[in-house]
Amino acid sequence: MVTLSPFAPDQFPTLPIIAGLKLGVTACGLCYQGRDDLVALRIEVKNSSIAAVFTTNKLPGEPVKWCKKHLPTPPQHLVMAAGNANVFTGAAGWQVLEDVAEDIAKREKITSNAVYFAMTGVIGEIFLATPLLNGLAELQYAVPNPALWQRAASAIMTTDTFAKGTAQTAKVAENSVQIAGIAKGSGMIAPDMATMLAFLFTDAAIPHDLLQQMLHAAMPESFHGISVDSDTSTSDSVMLIATGTSDCLVAKTYDDPLYDDFRTALQRACQDLAYQVVTDGEGIAKLLDIRLTGAKDSAEARCAALSIANSPLVKTAINGADANWGRVVMAIGKARVALEPEQIQICFGGHVLAEGGGAMAYDIAAVNKHLAGRKVTIAVNLGVGNASAQVYGNDLSHDYIRINADYRS
Amino acid sequence: MVTLSPFAPDQFPTLPIIAGLKLGVTACGLCYQGRDDLVALRIEVKNSSIAAVFTTNKLPGEPVKWCKKHLPTPPQHLVMAAGNANVFTGAAGWQVLEDVAEDIAKREKITSNAVYFAMTGVIGEIFLATPLLNGLAELQYAVPNPALWQRAASAIMTTDTFAKGTAQTAKVAENSVQIAGIAKGSGMIAPDMATMLAFLFTDAAIPHDLLQQMLHAAMPESFHGISVDSDTSTSDSVMLIATGTSDCLVAKTYDDPLYDDFRTALQRACQDLAYQVVTDGEGIAKLLDIRLTGAKDSAEARCAALSIANSPLVKTAINGADANWGRVVMAIGKARVALEPEQIQICFGGHVLAEGGGAMAYDIAAVNKHLAGRKVTIAVNLGVGNASAQVYGNDLSHDYIRINADYRS
Repeated sequence: MVTLSPFAPDQFPTLPIIAGLKLGVTACGLCYQGRDDLVALRIEVKNSSIAAVFTTNKLPGEPVKWCKKHLPTPPQHLVMAAGNANVFTGAAGWQVLEDVAEDIAKREKITSNAVYFAMTGVIGEIFLATPLLNGLAELQYAVPNPALWQRAASAIMTTDTFAKGTAQTAKVAENSVQIAGIAKGSGMIAPDMATMLAFLFTDAAIPHDLLQQMLHAAMPESFHGISVDSDTSTSDSVMLIATGTSDCLVAKTYDDPLYDDFRTALQRACQDLAYQVVTDGEGIAKLLDIRLTGAKDSAEARCAALSIANSPLVKTAINGADANWGRVVMAIGKARVALEPEQIQICFGGHVLAEGGGAMAYDIAAVNKHLAGRKVTIAVNLGVGNASAQVYGNDLSHDYIRINADYRS
Repeated sequence: MVTLSPFAPDQFPTLPIIAGLKLGVTACGLCYQGRDDLVALRIEVKNSSIAAVFTTNKLPGEPVKWCKKHLPTPPQHLVMAAGNANVFTGAAGWQVLEDVAEDIAKREKITSNAVYFAMTGVIGEIFLATPLLNGLAELQYAVPNPALWQRAASAIMTTDTFAKGTAQTAKVAENSVQIAGIAKGSGMIAPDMATMLAFLFTDAAIPHDLLQQMLHAAMPESFHGISVDSDTSTSDSVMLIATGTSDCLVAKTYDDPLYDDFRTALQRACQDLAYQVVTDGEGIAKLLDIRLTGAKDSAEARCAALSIANSPLVKTAINGADANWGRVVMAIGKARVALEPEQIQICFGGHVLAEGGGAMAYDIAAVNKHLAGRKVTIAVNLGVGNASAQVYGNDLSHDYIRINADYRS
């Protein structure tokens, strides 16, 4: 049996009501039996805006293609489903989206272009319309109270062991605006869209192009800064929907100081969700916090940090609580970034283990104590520049194999 | 306990005597206790030649740096050791090689430049000269009979579960020449030098530059065509030494037909050793044979094939005998190579599972039978060109984690 991540929070956060949103959750039997797997969200305002970032995988799912085609049409409906990702299903998979969007459009008296989709689950399975159509027909929409938000976050889980949510507030001039976010993701998690699925909602009024810039700016240090297994999903999607129901002021440019606090809150929200995704990484026993400094530029900093985070040998060493900094040497060496062997410094938990081109004497008891904990920090200075990057990863455990040798995802 | 690879051959091959070579094996206690860990090889001819290929890791070990510095000096001595790789040991690690080479040069009445080194084991551990110096002082050199070759191949093992060797013969005009090869490697195995260590010896007479071209030509479909865990070692070295003791004819150009048969035999020898390395991959339960066709060019074919071979999710699916071709879709999509979704064909064990942009009905019993076997073949046609690549990988198993969470390498 898969056990709860040791990083699971004590409770799901209290997500705010975003005026203009109604939420419905049900069990449609798309793949799982006897559990919620379908979430529909009605956006009851006409002038909402949406920003989104999708997977860089060259074989994206039909829902990703659908959303890319219809962006930036102001969203009026959003359908999320778990169990079948509707990926590599060809014309038939696309037709299901057409049919479901038409069905919703007729009932809701909107255009089908304003319906967005996000799905997660097995790749390549035949995707049938009937479960979705039946589920949507009987769905009850309601103002999203905290319990309903939690039910929605739970309904989109696959191998996740806990529901993921975030709640933030920000000031836009005198107005308080809210951010509510939910996400799912546990395996097939690698940067360049790392979340599988994340949805953020705000009652701020922000035009599409500014919203899109804000979301892009929030990525590098949140969803693009985590890796569970170096595998990039075909379904990864992050969507940010602004209803504008807070009647806050609207700025004309992305960097208007009016949005300073909102940008910060959005960054917090993305980081919070990304952290929850990586700490629910399949089979996680230990969180890996990699801080790379002294790189030539930020691309190389990120490349070296990810090479450490994704190395099976580093990940298994951390799982075994082994201060095997030699494998960190291997991982930065294979990243082929600019480096200076004599200048490299490698620290575990703040203790210098290697410096000046070789091993250093260190406080073994203190390092072992750090490695025995849940969070392991590896800091590497490449010694050639001023660029840095931070990446979260996790260990490679027996549970990762147990989960993935059995589960179809 | 680590168990023998299910692919371990019944017996070590019978390696030929290469005239001009003497071999010594002993236990020097570099890291392991109570087992052979030091091999020294004396090349008793003055006009030998050497070709070598080394790791692309940017933090190579001191032995790799040493060899690169002294190539193509005709080799007169070769020292191999297991347990400590002498990597990231800085000036001290280099000094040990200087001292050991001087010691050998004095005793053997050769120059220290003609001594070559190859080491494998833990990275970053302090590397002491004493065990090597003591071991070499008492070493007995002998004509390498089959039993001695096997002892040498066993002495360089680390996490390997079986000793690896190959024996080939080739015709150079009327002369028969021999190739004897040994290798070690089990983890930290990724292309761009995949073996950790491999040594090939021949009594053919081939000048250095031709020998080097031949070795390079043999790489793509042997050592560069395997991956165990996507981690590229700091110590990978393949060396090919020709003693010229067979009195065979010498050609002036690499592509002289005189060497046709030798080139083929060398290719066979490299493939044989590479196959033994990947089939002894840490924790291997199943061998993964990936055949990629229809790519734009051979670099993209190789990139897509390796993306499949290195995907943790594909590897765990194979471990679980799950025909999860959706994960193959993910792996080729994340490789970002040119592809045409509608043209892609994915086969497991010769059965078409996906084609025309979606799933195909297939003989489930036959595919399951194939997946239950030891060797799983995944064939992917990208449908955009004529380039192809073949890569061997293996599954990701509990044993890989067991080995690497405990063992320091």
